[in-house]
Amino acid sequence: MTAYSELEARQRDLSRFRELGAIAGWDEACMMPPGGGSRRAEALAALSGLIHERSAAPEIGELLTQARNEPLDAWQDANLDEIDRQWRTATAVPADLVKALALATSHCEQAWREARGRNDWQGIQPLLEEVVRLSRERASALADAMALDPYDALLETYEPELRSRDVEKEFDILKSFLPPLLEEVLGAQATPLPLEGPFAIADQRSLCEATMRTLGFDFNRGRFDVSHHPFCGGVPDDTRITTRYDEAGFLESLMAICHETGHALYQQGLPVDWRDQPVGDALGAAVHESQSLLLELQVCRSRAFIEHITPAIQNAFSRASDDPAWSAENLYQHAIRVERGLIRVQADEVTYPLHVILRFELERDMIAGRLEVADLPEAWNDAMQRYLGRSTDGDYANGCMQDVHWFAGLFGYFPTYTLGALTAAQWFATARDSDPEIMPGIQRGDLAPLLRWLRQHIHGQGRKLVMQPLLREVTGSELDAGYFQRHLSERYLA
Amino acid sequence: MTAYSELEARQRDLSRFRELGAIAGWDEACMMPPGGGSRRAEALAALSGLIHERSAAPEIGELLTQARNEPLDAWQDANLDEIDRQWRTATAVPADLVKALALATSHCEQAWREARGRNDWQGIQPLLEEVVRLSRERASALADAMALDPYDALLETYEPELRSRDVEKEFDILKSFLPPLLEEVLGAQATPLPLEGPFAIADQRSLCEATMRTLGFDFNRGRFDVSHHPFCGGVPDDTRITTRYDEAGFLESLMAICHETGHALYQQGLPVDWRDQPVGDALGAAVHESQSLLLELQVCRSRAFIEHITPAIQNAFSRASDDPAWSAENLYQHAIRVERGLIRVQADEVTYPLHVILRFELERDMIAGRLEVADLPEAWNDAMQRYLGRSTDGDYANGCMQDVHWFAGLFGYFPTYTLGALTAAQWFATARDSDPEIMPGIQRGDLAPLLRWLRQHIHGQGRKLVMQPLLREVTGSELDAGYFQRHLSERYLA
Repeated sequence: MTAYSELEARQRDLSRFRELGAIAGWDEACMMPPGGGSRRAEALAALSGLIHERSAAPEIGELLTQARNEPLDAWQDANLDEIDRQWRTATAVPADLVKALALATSHCEQAWREARGRNDWQGIQPLLEEVVRLSRERASALADAMALDPYDALLETYEPELRSRDVEKEFDILKSFLPPLLEEVLGAQATPLPLEGPFAIADQRSLCEATMRTLGFDFNRGRFDVSHHPFCGGVPDDTRITTRYDEAGFLESLMAICHETGHALYQQGLPVDWRDQPVGDALGAAVHESQSLLLELQVCRSRAFIEHITPAIQNAFSRASDDPAWSAENLYQHAIRVERGLIRVQADEVTYPLHVILRFELERDMIAGRLEVADLPEAWNDAMQRYLGRSTDGDYANGCMQDVHWFAGLFGYFPTYTLGALTAAQWFATARDSDPEIMPGIQRGDLAPLLRWLRQHIHGQGRKLVMQPLLREVTGSELDAGYFQRHLSERYLA
Repeated sequence: MTAYSELEARQRDLSRFRELGAIAGWDEACMMPPGGGSRRAEALAALSGLIHERSAAPEIGELLTQARNEPLDAWQDANLDEIDRQWRTATAVPADLVKALALATSHCEQAWREARGRNDWQGIQPLLEEVVRLSRERASALADAMALDPYDALLETYEPELRSRDVEKEFDILKSFLPPLLEEVLGAQATPLPLEGPFAIADQRSLCEATMRTLGFDFNRGRFDVSHHPFCGGVPDDTRITTRYDEAGFLESLMAICHETGHALYQQGLPVDWRDQPVGDALGAAVHESQSLLLELQVCRSRAFIEHITPAIQNAFSRASDDPAWSAENLYQHAIRVERGLIRVQADEVTYPLHVILRFELERDMIAGRLEVADLPEAWNDAMQRYLGRSTDGDYANGCMQDVHWFAGLFGYFPTYTLGALTAAQWFATARDSDPEIMPGIQRGDLAPLLRWLRQHIHGQGRKLVMQPLLREVTGSELDAGYFQRHLSERYLA
């Protein structure tokens, strides 16, 4: 057995254990009765411990060195790079720090759920301070092992080889064109006619399921259920997406399903020949988000797709096709409505990047030690006024306490949302221009041409290339916010 | 850390991995899309491999020896016995044989599914021969490690410390009283009025769920779903039972749920203080079956319970309470109908033990080398004629090919079904006689007094005592078929 095949065999086992974790995690969110919670947490922690122990096994270092001298093809070589990256990440952070951080984030996240409801910043501040302190230590340890800047070392764990200078370059472009564009859109958009509910949940479910089929979700290798927050989980051959319903409105749930189906199509389209190996995995959070946002923003919120799906919507809720509130145009106006809101998760595609830029700049400064937790609410309020013209003074719940990420120790994640939106525009423009079947397909609800393109250029590539080289190969350039800018101009100012 | 606490810590991890296996197994039966099957099988096999490797770790032998010299209380001592038993079982069979048997049974079971439909004994015979050959080897290896007769070594894996001489003694009693009793019952029973369907599945589901609540199933720590065959899975704090529905009849599904709820109550009632340790597990298959049959046969098929539940049944299917087909008496006659059938899983409580005795005697002889697979169909037919007066000559599908057990390598399991029925009668008579609240409770649909008794005397005891000592402590005698005989006489001949 070569050192390389020994490494592959170890990855195969790890991948099987991760599959069990993915299913047990899905079950926890969708099926588990409340009384099962505390033991499930322990079982999943034991599994994580096992996976970490095996990922960080010292003999992997030796095997990696040997395998570097063995003859490998391009996929195997990329696989070796991924195994190497995983091993360096797994071994970089001392076990004591991993445990301390797990404990601190678990406490802080639980306390945050309560504190946010009471707008209680003072209560949560010391817990967040501890999480930030330990996250800085972790970032430093990762940085030392990877010869990177600490914040870049965190970014690296979410999107391989993505650096903050790449992020800043594109975000600077967004900061210059988004505020004036927002002014213009808000001044120009008309108020659509209201869509009167209620909308029965069974009807919403049928509409969502039919839409998933239209978009190409493979139900032979996946499921669709309900959970507290929409997500995409499971594994490539058993991909599980969820949504939640509100009888007062159907559009949010439907669009959530379009979004999660984008993640699911990526997962279901990963290269079959590399199922158990890291090179067969999806790329990081930014590229994953590019697939969900390509489907949600570029396809499903487009005029062409809304026109196609309008009869199905009218039919699902037994609305008259000549009712102007239920016309394709009015539904489209609902789908692309823009607002200066306080809350990121409710934001439209024009304001969303501003919410993200704010968070990126604050977390980058916190990790670098240039911003302390005590000063966070003021810094947040300043940035909100600057980017969105809204105040969160004293309103912590809708300010710096609105998102779970920092309280759960997730630093470096936020930028991936907007990098996903930018990349989605870049992939989609390239696809549309390179295959003349794609746009007519979308107009008649046939996504096969688009899916074929995505399968060939993105999904089927796994981690053979990381984000920037893949963008270069497929679109001819690295990340370029110009695509997103043109997309917004075409949709909102045409 | 003492050797004993080191052993406990190892068991804790094992128990967490087993929990993930239980949930992934439930998911496979109830939720998984077809395309997920082959990878799920691999993931579960990898988990089994991990659990086996850790259960058979050589250092456990050393720790067991050391722990024997440490001061332990009665529960810890019983726990040590169980750890010892598991370790001896895990280390007794050579890894090569474990793998060969897993492969042979997997092939044979898959082929059996096809072959049974075609009544193809000749096709399956060589595969079963291989399974029997390897099962004999396994029985021998276990026998050597445990200083037991080979068939007893197999029995031991299903019910600790149960021996075939105990089984034979009770089965001889059944063989003497069941045939004449069966004649008498068949001569005396009247044909009930038919229950005309169809019965909508949603209505059946509601009735089953309401019945589970009546019986004491804790929905905060469990779920109820649909699968191909009814089963009870999951873990004590997350117990999952299933049934299947047929629109043509509701009684089979309802009684399946009463049965599975019996298993579930046992699981949900295991001692909280010993959750992660072998002593906190349920006893073997015979005692587990005693809990399901206590609920199904002793409680739910009783006249008292059927009388209580009749209005709920009439209501579930909107049947008039004065329709004689829907009277409590007619429903009761359906619930206790006796028939000389060919099929074990469709058998009533009078004929079921005869089906089991037939299988017990044949498998015992096969493992001992006194019966060869080639002679099985004839031996089966002979025994069917002797015990049930029915022929299976040339009808392999309804003869020796009807059950999956042997084709899956499960030798030693069959007797536990009937040992469960005997023990159920013994527990129930003892409970009823010792707590005067129990019978009036059942009559008014309040199972709390019975459940309290079961929790105290059986469920909460875990594996502190094995089956015969527990029977002695709780009922005053070891396994005694006289209780079952009296139960049948009271129900069918009174």
